[in-house]
Amino acid sequence: MFIHKIKSEGLSHLSYLVGNNGQAFVVDPRRDCEVYIEEAAKAGCRITHVFETHRNEDLISGAPILAQLTGARVLHGPNAAGDVTYADTTRDGETFEFGNLRVQVLETPGHTDDSLSFALFDTDFGEDAVGVFTGDALFIGDVGRTDFYPDRAEEVAGLLYDSLQKIMALGDQALLYPAHGAGSVCGDNMADREFSSLGYERRGNRMVGINSREQFIREKVTEHHYQPPYFRLMEKLNLTGADPAPRVATPPPLSPGEFRRLPDRTAIVDVRNVSAFLGAHLPGSLAIPAPMVPAFAGWYIEPGQPVVLVAADPAQARLASEHLIRIGLDNLQGFLTTDMPEWSAKGLPFHSLPVMHVDDIRERFRKPPEGWQLLDVRSITEYQGEAIEGSVHAYVGELPQKLDQLDRNRHYTVMCASGARATIAASILERAGFSRVDVFLGSFGAWKSTD
Amino acid sequence: MFIHKIKSEGLSHLSYLVGNNGQAFVVDPRRDCEVYIEEAAKAGCRITHVFETHRNEDLISGAPILAQLTGARVLHGPNAAGDVTYADTTRDGETFEFGNLRVQVLETPGHTDDSLSFALFDTDFGEDAVGVFTGDALFIGDVGRTDFYPDRAEEVAGLLYDSLQKIMALGDQALLYPAHGAGSVCGDNMADREFSSLGYERRGNRMVGINSREQFIREKVTEHHYQPPYFRLMEKLNLTGADPAPRVATPPPLSPGEFRRLPDRTAIVDVRNVSAFLGAHLPGSLAIPAPMVPAFAGWYIEPGQPVVLVAADPAQARLASEHLIRIGLDNLQGFLTTDMPEWSAKGLPFHSLPVMHVDDIRERFRKPPEGWQLLDVRSITEYQGEAIEGSVHAYVGELPQKLDQLDRNRHYTVMCASGARATIAASILERAGFSRVDVFLGSFGAWKSTD
Amino acid sequence: MFIHKIKSEGLSHLSYLVGNNGQAFVVDPRRDCEVYIEEAAKAGCRITHVFETHRNEDLISGAPILAQLTGARVLHGPNAAGDVTYADTTRDGETFEFGNLRVQVLETPGHTDDSLSFALFDTDFGEDAVGVFTGDALFIGDVGRTDFYPDRAEEVAGLLYDSLQKIMALGDQALLYPAHGAGSVCGDNMADREFSSLGYERRGNRMVGINSREQFIREKVTEHHYQPPYFRLMEKLNLTGADPAPRVATPPPLSPGEFRRLPDRTAIVDVRNVSAFLGAHLPGSLAIPAPMVPAFAGWYIEPGQPVVLVAADPAQARLASEHLIRIGLDNLQGFLTTDMPEWSAKGLPFHSLPVMHVDDIRERFRKPPEGWQLLDVRSITEYQGEAIEGSVHAYVGELPQKLDQLDRNRHYTVMCASGARATIAASILERAGFSRVDVFLGSFGAWKSTD
Amino acid sequence: MFIHKIKSEGLSHLSYLVGNNGQAFVVDPRRDCEVYIEEAAKAGCRITHVFETHRNEDLISGAPILAQLTGARVLHGPNAAGDVTYADTTRDGETFEFGNLRVQVLETPGHTDDSLSFALFDTDFGEDAVGVFTGDALFIGDVGRTDFYPDRAEEVAGLLYDSLQKIMALGDQALLYPAHGAGSVCGDNMADREFSSLGYERRGNRMVGINSREQFIREKVTEHHYQPPYFRLMEKLNLTGADPAPRVATPPPLSPGEFRRLPDRTAIVDVRNVSAFLGAHLPGSLAIPAPMVPAFAGWYIEPGQPVVLVAADPAQARLASEHLIRIGLDNLQGFLTTDMPEWSAKGLPFHSLPVMHVDDIRERFRKPPEGWQLLDVRSITEYQGEAIEGSVHAYVGELPQKLDQLDRNRHYTVMCASGARATIAASILERAGFSRVDVFLGSFGAWKSTD
Repeated sequence: MFIHKIKSEGLSHLSYLVGNNGQAFVVDPRRDCEVYIEEAAKAGCRITHVFETHRNEDLISGAPILAQLTGARVLHGPNAAGDVTYADTTRDGETFEFGNLRVQVLETPGHTDDSLSFALFDTDFGEDAVGVFTGDALFIGDVGRTDFYPDRAEEVAGLLYDSLQKIMALGDQALLYPAHGAGSVCGDNMADREFSSLGYERRGNRMVGINSREQFIREKVTEHHYQPPYFRLMEKLNLTGADPAPRVATPPPLSPGEFRRLPDRTAIVDVRNVSAFLGAHLPGSLAIPAPMVPAFAGWYIEPGQPVVLVAADPAQARLASEHLIRIGLDNLQGFLTTDMPEWSAKGLPFHSLPVMHVDDIRERFRKPPEGWQLLDVRSITEYQGEAIEGSVHAYVGELPQKLDQLDRNRHYTVMCASGARATIAASILERAGFSRVDVFLGSFGAWKSTD
Repeated sequence: MFIHKIKSEGLSHLSYLVGNNGQAFVVDPRRDCEVYIEEAAKAGCRITHVFETHRNEDLISGAPILAQLTGARVLHGPNAAGDVTYADTTRDGETFEFGNLRVQVLETPGHTDDSLSFALFDTDFGEDAVGVFTGDALFIGDVGRTDFYPDRAEEVAGLLYDSLQKIMALGDQALLYPAHGAGSVCGDNMADREFSSLGYERRGNRMVGINSREQFIREKVTEHHYQPPYFRLMEKLNLTGADPAPRVATPPPLSPGEFRRLPDRTAIVDVRNVSAFLGAHLPGSLAIPAPMVPAFAGWYIEPGQPVVLVAADPAQARLASEHLIRIGLDNLQGFLTTDMPEWSAKGLPFHSLPVMHVDDIRERFRKPPEGWQLLDVRSITEYQGEAIEGSVHAYVGELPQKLDQLDRNRHYTVMCASGARATIAASILERAGFSRVDVFLGSFGAWKSTD
Repeated sequence: MFIHKIKSEGLSHLSYLVGNNGQAFVVDPRRDCEVYIEEAAKAGCRITHVFETHRNEDLISGAPILAQLTGARVLHGPNAAGDVTYADTTRDGETFEFGNLRVQVLETPGHTDDSLSFALFDTDFGEDAVGVFTGDALFIGDVGRTDFYPDRAEEVAGLLYDSLQKIMALGDQALLYPAHGAGSVCGDNMADREFSSLGYERRGNRMVGINSREQFIREKVTEHHYQPPYFRLMEKLNLTGADPAPRVATPPPLSPGEFRRLPDRTAIVDVRNVSAFLGAHLPGSLAIPAPMVPAFAGWYIEPGQPVVLVAADPAQARLASEHLIRIGLDNLQGFLTTDMPEWSAKGLPFHSLPVMHVDDIRERFRKPPEGWQLLDVRSITEYQGEAIEGSVHAYVGELPQKLDQLDRNRHYTVMCASGARATIAASILERAGFSRVDVFLGSFGAWKSTD
Repeated sequence: MFIHKIKSEGLSHLSYLVGNNGQAFVVDPRRDCEVYIEEAAKAGCRITHVFETHRNEDLISGAPILAQLTGARVLHGPNAAGDVTYADTTRDGETFEFGNLRVQVLETPGHTDDSLSFALFDTDFGEDAVGVFTGDALFIGDVGRTDFYPDRAEEVAGLLYDSLQKIMALGDQALLYPAHGAGSVCGDNMADREFSSLGYERRGNRMVGINSREQFIREKVTEHHYQPPYFRLMEKLNLTGADPAPRVATPPPLSPGEFRRLPDRTAIVDVRNVSAFLGAHLPGSLAIPAPMVPAFAGWYIEPGQPVVLVAADPAQARLASEHLIRIGLDNLQGFLTTDMPEWSAKGLPFHSLPVMHVDDIRERFRKPPEGWQLLDVRSITEYQGEAIEGSVHAYVGELPQKLDQLDRNRHYTVMCASGARATIAASILERAGFSRVDVFLGSFGAWKSTD
């Protein structure tokens, strides 16, 4: 009996291949799902079942694709939005046997109405669960979001509370296998540690520790979470099943000449590192460093919009492509490999973004330049927690929608926690024609540590 | 905070790289220890400590080597046999901090006098252990051997009982990280499942469930375990530190001509699969299929003895070499790649072993051939559990020492549970000049399933 | 400017990825063609053209698949059999520019009517060809087969002669890039060396050295080549374009139970090594060791026939699957991993094949067992070259069609050059119900070297 | 018979593993030489000989290390500087047989006095060479440097001329295998194409085409080449043999805190991309983007000097480490992974370099800022070929020695061909306390293309 965790970085999405005696199942597969088949074959196992903890809103489900490639049966919870067309509906208490491994279904709604957990038993060793796959109901250090049904906010928070009681009743000994780890947009307070047990969460997870249903609901309804626009695309695709991932993840390399002849609607996404973008970049390009693509691309790229990448090397382009494919923004036209000397040596245009040190910012507060404003693009939760006095706020994800609340003639210094999201934001302002934009590198971290 | 399990197949040895905030430590590293450094570097961590749960008797410790490569400090328990020269002694209660990760030492003697466990805490999440490294004290589904101090059998069994109480006191929530998994010679009843918690073991591990110290001792002292001769070499090397593994694991390929001019003392070890050896093999070669090398080579190869391998391909030779290097039987002179057609097409000699089906055996019992005997080479525990009436017993590992109890003029059919160990044993008999040897393929498994 | 050779082992098929300044083309891609796109992207190149030297009869062309994945244009020679539907026709003298790299088309019929060669120029370095892709017209050490138009044998041999003069006229300095290397069924006398130049072939290639058109024709028409039945499938598929390879090459693992319930028509192909098959194998299985699959599977498996594999491990199953996919025999139902102890321990049936040493054979000639015959399954060319007196001949590939010329009641010892093909042949006899079959391991090689 | 080319990027060093019939030899191995043994073993070959074309001055020879690991014999040419202690001396005409593969030694002095070429024959195919390893005597598109004996400039140029005649006499058909490809500091005009033949060079290599010994000498003595200081270390180490490469290439990750406590003498080498350095970097760090490390680190790092790296990720640190290890500048203390947001968010100091577009430079020429100068750091050959009027010259490699010829109070814009070497140079100026430094991104390439 083995559990292999397959992690999609950036999304911090955790899926699991579980095998026993030549049979295997997958929990929450991602779109590029050949990996499960290959890993299973190496372990001598045939995938016969796919269990989905819920209809994912942050990535394309690989369940229908995996089912088609292997003949496996997909199991999904009861869904009020209409049936998930590629899955059989499974309900509380149903069990599945894989030799001495037994899976038992728990309906654990709250995060979504169709949320399931799957308890895992080794029947050779008794009647207690050895582990549980909790999807987005229970994370390590946090619990799931309950902001997807705004009209039923209190109700679903209460449902989650009840679901957590059901999960915890499996016993302290059960190992915990959630669908996301730290870094996901699906929870703010997850531990940067990917192993735990129900017993450990009972003691150390603040939300699990709340033993009043009312208080739990009160806390949940005051949380603030963002929903990037691509979530709606995911919900739609995951109802009927998305197309398989392209057979080759890397889009074709393009020459600078081909790059310059791109159609107008094309998004030029620069996936190089933050410093590289600050140093020099293509005019009009959007900065989304490759590891940040899963969390931020869905805010700025529309479904179906043509995308080209600027990358430091083909491996970086490939990484960014894989990220985009997993969230369905995969109309990838190609990539340009450049660290800018080659590009600029052809006499082609480029921009740089001025970089401010914390000392520069303090100096500016002492002697503010004309029309200057410090723009903080962190989440509203972070900003409300603590912020630099005199700064204004607009969340980086929502910036394209808030441009008309800003003044193109002002001088903006963009900040976040470190300078990374600020660089994304600065690229959006620059692209929108703001001419006096610079980036506070170090941002709130530097401000606090030099306080 | 992450834990990477690094497994050495065959030995089923589990070591762990644990990292947090740029720092890392390793628990029970193996000899070829570059992997820990490379994995740590990929995770942005520097290895600063090595924790040893005990002085290993079944493999060469990589602790002194890793210490030399990284500057890390090695921690080892108090050892009556004299100090482990490359380590600092650590004692019960001592703690080590790696940011919010804390390691606490528990002295847990019994398996050996110097056995330690290391409890793991995430101080961001409270005062309970999140995991524990138990070495050979507590496995998943079993507990450690206590046969290494034959004069103190009851005493050390009792010590192990006490140690288990100490470990279990960490709480049900703690995840369990032992030094071996199923397949190791260090325990017979381990689960074929490499994840568990103390709570799960409290419920499902039969030995942990015994709550009488006396009964526990009684059971332990009646267990039978084998000690291959190379254990003594390991104990010696792990006191002062062995040499690093060779820089290249694969020994040089040899031509058939070079192979035929080997010095007499050289062990020819055929690491091909069981069926391949049965089909055709070099006269005088010893059958030890590559995955069985860790468990069996130490019975037949003497420290320092020159070894050559016969392998189906270079990858198989490399795998066998890695196994031999980990147990210090690494005077590897080279390997011959052959599936026998090439070898035999040069007119060189080869042998085959006749293969018997269960039907043939039943027929032989009905009409025994002259001088025929069925020789069962399973462990004494397996044999005493259940055996074919009329068979005689000699353990495969001890066979070279028991040859004079057998009769070179008899006709032996060798059996085990499936035919794999029987093939090893048959190769030993053939090498020793027994001329009428065949192998019962399917062995006791076939006997039972066709009963 | 770079040339990457991508070799398909077994078929000894050589294809080439050629890149320059961000553009690339492929010569003779195979079916599993993602490798070209990935290699090209790593080198920063976009594949824009695919050149086919001819319509391949021994493997599925990847040209239409690659064209679909990349948008590349496929170029093929004029084909009397009707147009290759996925390609544009190109003719002698046409040129293609990739920056300073120029490709020039040479019509070089003979092997097939549509055979082309492609001369390669680096226009930065003058007007002479730096290399030439010759397809199956010119190999290293040999020239192409001319047995595909039996009614026009002399005519096409003469065409090949003329084509070779055209190729050699490119000059001694041109490097040679053929479509096959040693081991291919497309030529018997290729050098076991994969680098050469036209100048080197002019001096060292016996067939190129013939300077009489008549003598060349005379030699070619007396050559004997075999055409496995699957060639016809390839010719058909390569006219209109085959389906892409499956997304995952490895078929699903099957349990022994599933294996026993296979439909009757299923071919059980044991791809383990020769010795392993001799030692023990499933009754009714066909021996084709994995590396021999490309050369021999096409003789025994019908298009569309369900196939299951017996393999020593999943990697071996994958290798064999890749081979089968490349030749379109890809109705793969799964594989069984077994080295036979596991299988036999369930009490399931197996067979072994008795293995004969050259000494045994000589003894049998002295005292022939009753009804005994030595059956040589080498090619007719090998057999007519030199054979053991008293042996009879049937080519291993044609054996299924020749079974009625053999006598089920006789005792056959099968031989070839080493014992490998003999094992395939013995498995065919055994499957057909011949009950007295053994294998002469070492075969003609052993016979000669002990003469 | 096979030739595997093993290329060390950056150095553009080409070494070769050549195998036949179970034996193999290596030509010009690099320091990290396990790769040859592993590749040879995969091909079933044992390395028995190492051939050195000359005593390398640009990298550490792996010959003595490989000899120690394999027992192979090293062959080197006669050396006036004293014997190469780890090698046997071989002379013109000596031959070595590896089955049907024969190697014949040609003394081909000129580049160095001990330069050898090795002609390769396939004796199965006649008496002409099929290839030749020419070391630094003959490259593809160029010939070797002859600037290492300044007192004997004309003599050694003449020797090279004679050596080239000897090589070309092997015949047009011979394939060419030199010790360097395009990008190496060992020749300026090599083709960006790594395959050729003597016949192709005879037609297309300008230097080979010169058929007057006098003219050849005249051209060679007017060439200008740079000799980085580390060349002397290489020459010294390659006489007696350097230590093996470290067992693990990647140095340990360091925390920002550890980084700030480095000893004064430590070189901080930022191996991130050009744009990233321009955007933000640690004060006092030296910019050498990872791929440029082999060509430039040897100008700035002294033998034995402690080095730390700043890298975007561990893979980039590893790449740079491998480069440094190959040229013996391997006192590597660790690396810092940062793209600067993390570093700066701790309030730590950083710098940026202003980036100039070609339009800015033209504007500056129109209205020169006070004290402004355009500093061109290309090679003197490039500068003398064509330069921007008004620019001054100092070669990037020699810049540390020329700082006193520059004026710390001036405002320098640094340029090269594209901006890459200019960034290195700007980092040197900045480190030396020049306060007004910026970089002309696009540099001479942009100037010309917008002319």
